[in-house]
Amino acid sequence: MNRLFDLIPDKDRVLLGNIEDKYLSDTLGRLKGTAAALVFPVSTEEVSAVMKFAYENHLPVTPRGAGTNLVGSTVPHGQGIILDLSLMNHILSVDEETFTAVVEPGVMLQDFQAHVESLGLFYPPDPGEKQSTLAGNIATNAGGMRAVKYGVTRDYVRGLEVVLADGRVIQAGTKNVKDASGLALKQFFIGSEGTLGVITKCILKLVPKPEASLSVLLPYDDLKTGIRSVHAIIKSNIGPTAIEFIERSVVELGEKYTGVSFPCPQAQAYILLTFDGFADQVESAARRVEAVAKNTGAIECIPMKDPALAADIWRVRGCFVKAVEAVSEQEPVDLVVPIDQTAEFISFVHETEEKSGVKMISFGHAGDGNVHLCVMREDRDDATWEKDLHEVMHILYDKAYSLGGLTSGEHGVGIAKRPYFLKNTDPENLSVMRAIKAALDDRHILNDHISYLK
Amino acid sequence: MNRLFDLIPDKDRVLLGNIEDKYLSDTLGRLKGTAAALVFPVSTEEVSAVMKFAYENHLPVTPRGAGTNLVGSTVPHGQGIILDLSLMNHILSVDEETFTAVVEPGVMLQDFQAHVESLGLFYPPDPGEKQSTLAGNIATNAGGMRAVKYGVTRDYVRGLEVVLADGRVIQAGTKNVKDASGLALKQFFIGSEGTLGVITKCILKLVPKPEASLSVLLPYDDLKTGIRSVHAIIKSNIGPTAIEFIERSVVELGEKYTGVSFPCPQAQAYILLTFDGFADQVESAARRVEAVAKNTGAIECIPMKDPALAADIWRVRGCFVKAVEAVSEQEPVDLVVPIDQTAEFISFVHETEEKSGVKMISFGHAGDGNVHLCVMREDRDDATWEKDLHEVMHILYDKAYSLGGLTSGEHGVGIAKRPYFLKNTDPENLSVMRAIKAALDDRHILNDHISYLK
Repeated sequence: MNRLFDLIPDKDRVLLGNIEDKYLSDTLGRLKGTAAALVFPVSTEEVSAVMKFAYENHLPVTPRGAGTNLVGSTVPHGQGIILDLSLMNHILSVDEETFTAVVEPGVMLQDFQAHVESLGLFYPPDPGEKQSTLAGNIATNAGGMRAVKYGVTRDYVRGLEVVLADGRVIQAGTKNVKDASGLALKQFFIGSEGTLGVITKCILKLVPKPEASLSVLLPYDDLKTGIRSVHAIIKSNIGPTAIEFIERSVVELGEKYTGVSFPCPQAQAYILLTFDGFADQVESAARRVEAVAKNTGAIECIPMKDPALAADIWRVRGCFVKAVEAVSEQEPVDLVVPIDQTAEFISFVHETEEKSGVKMISFGHAGDGNVHLCVMREDRDDATWEKDLHEVMHILYDKAYSLGGLTSGEHGVGIAKRPYFLKNTDPENLSVMRAIKAALDDRHILNDHISYLK
Repeated sequence: MNRLFDLIPDKDRVLLGNIEDKYLSDTLGRLKGTAAALVFPVSTEEVSAVMKFAYENHLPVTPRGAGTNLVGSTVPHGQGIILDLSLMNHILSVDEETFTAVVEPGVMLQDFQAHVESLGLFYPPDPGEKQSTLAGNIATNAGGMRAVKYGVTRDYVRGLEVVLADGRVIQAGTKNVKDASGLALKQFFIGSEGTLGVITKCILKLVPKPEASLSVLLPYDDLKTGIRSVHAIIKSNIGPTAIEFIERSVVELGEKYTGVSFPCPQAQAYILLTFDGFADQVESAARRVEAVAKNTGAIECIPMKDPALAADIWRVRGCFVKAVEAVSEQEPVDLVVPIDQTAEFISFVHETEEKSGVKMISFGHAGDGNVHLCVMREDRDDATWEKDLHEVMHILYDKAYSLGGLTSGEHGVGIAKRPYFLKNTDPENLSVMRAIKAALDDRHILNDHISYLK
């Protein structure tokens, strides 16, 4: 490992041994791995040199950005190298002529969003965690609320510079809008959780910044009616940016945590919509939604024109995970089901809560069937928690798959969701994934502990 | 090859020898390959059985749909099998609850579009060739005019059933909107021109059908001003569905062919825009465009509210290839450049025409830098045409790459564009593409004559 000091000129950027715990885990801090070295490269050349060294010596490598992942994908293993890309955090250029930006992998989402918005541009992917890095978002194909209108991170990646497991550097993609010129290499790396290469540069697509944005709150007697209404809203082509669902019980948790009172407390479920565009467009969208929603069971239609009201409502929507964590450790779940199965899945969650005694808070993206659950530990001891959690998780994932769903919509598989992913994924699919892994990383050094690829 | 009769129960669906020319070529009919057998499977099981047989016997396989491709990707080679999927042409289901459809690979684009539109739904990918098959569109990641607003075919593929080279069948993707559950296998096959697997089923994304559509014609004194104006229109966030550019000389060719007179004949270039959405939205978009366009050099702004006028204008726009082919054989080019380089590239085309004496008609998608050229043979004999064409093509592709462009935006590489693609693509990228090919088709039997993957 001393060889790393030859590869990285600045000695402060190589640590051998005594690695702080935060580098050995993800943001939850429950899984803890091992590593012999922690390196902070500042250039593609350094990343390439470290990968060559690792490749020659069969050393496991775990790339990481801000470490905000929730599934253990930055938990290192063995006596390998942690490659922390957080110093490669420069916005290299914003090209207003082609609506693209070139950034280093460690640029933080919130910094990038603020910068391009200051130029009248807009980067739509908006996962909940704004202190994540852009390459981290790409590695999990992060989604977020605006996905209903704008799509997910994959849709905003024009190109990637990637260092392969053996240290070779490729440029996958360009600033061009369309590309039918050979295999679409960049697509392989998006969502691959650091298992196929290390992203060292990103060409991202931007759009013009919308002039205005307006949220609308729709209360319903029950979630099923709300979800049916969402279908009618989508079908009517009004084009919301975001469609969130929240149950009353979860709102109450948020009200308690924030001190805010949600409107229409007699409702059992809420649908929260956002529209963006020109001011007159969002106004007319709100009017159109009112008609459709009232026809499909909404108790009322509350356009949140008062910025203070909108801020309050979104503060409640934004606080659920923290509100849960204030009272209990929790395991985050972000499974997906086809959009017409969301209500059935949530009612199954409630049944499972009753049967198992394990409390779960559910909310999520009604526009794309992405259900977020916080499975609460409460006062269980370690052994009971492990047992109860795994039992409940198997029940939930089995149900999700039986409805046509999948393990994850935006967090990835990592270590934490591996058992459920492996159990429910066709062996032929796994064997193709493993063939791709072997083709790009024949020594299995990159994040190989995500063992679905072993 | 007689073994094929055991695999395909209906004898009419296997042809050994005496294969009609159209199955040995693409839609241009200039390249002609060879094959020992032509098979028309009707099920995934039959495709799988044929692939197993081919794999065991190291026989080359060339999948084809409607054979509308322009780059020789359906030209077979050696003594192998042509797998014609045109009998697998059923729309299996349209799921209005999840806005998806499941179709067989050989369904024709125009039939599918008409069917979903009759249900109030909409399939946005709209390449010029409507008699192509949906799996063919996926194999080239076809684009088309509506790509500016809606994206390309890749964006509408939720899932694929694929038969691999060795006959194994995988289900890559689902009806779910989001997916961060393992490597995104479906992405590997989209745009791979039949080199990695045979598509036997497609899950496609639909959207609600827009209520109205309105085209606007903007004449300019020169193309450069028009292209600058396009940037201003995109930047102003009005959100056109399509942005086409046409030069006056090309319009005149179209006028002659159709007998239609284009408005504002003193213009040297036109930008043709379409908007879709609610009727009031497209009206206000047209008003907004008028303001931006007149501020950025448009001679006038002609909203084509009269359906007869709109039909005329689009008839001219749609006839260019046929108008060229009425007077000369032509080689189609669909290269891409970054959107801010379109005008420079077109002026380079004109210089090249003058220097080389080779006439070229250019038009295309100004919203995404996808330039279509018809390189005209006129009265050249075979040897002169081959020499002149290749000289000019190298000059054009070299220039496109020097501007940051690529070989193809929607047609693919195939055989015809291989030399230019190979010349301009980084060897590291080629080696990664080849590693993927070898991982999925180790015997190189699927469309391997697209030799960039050899």
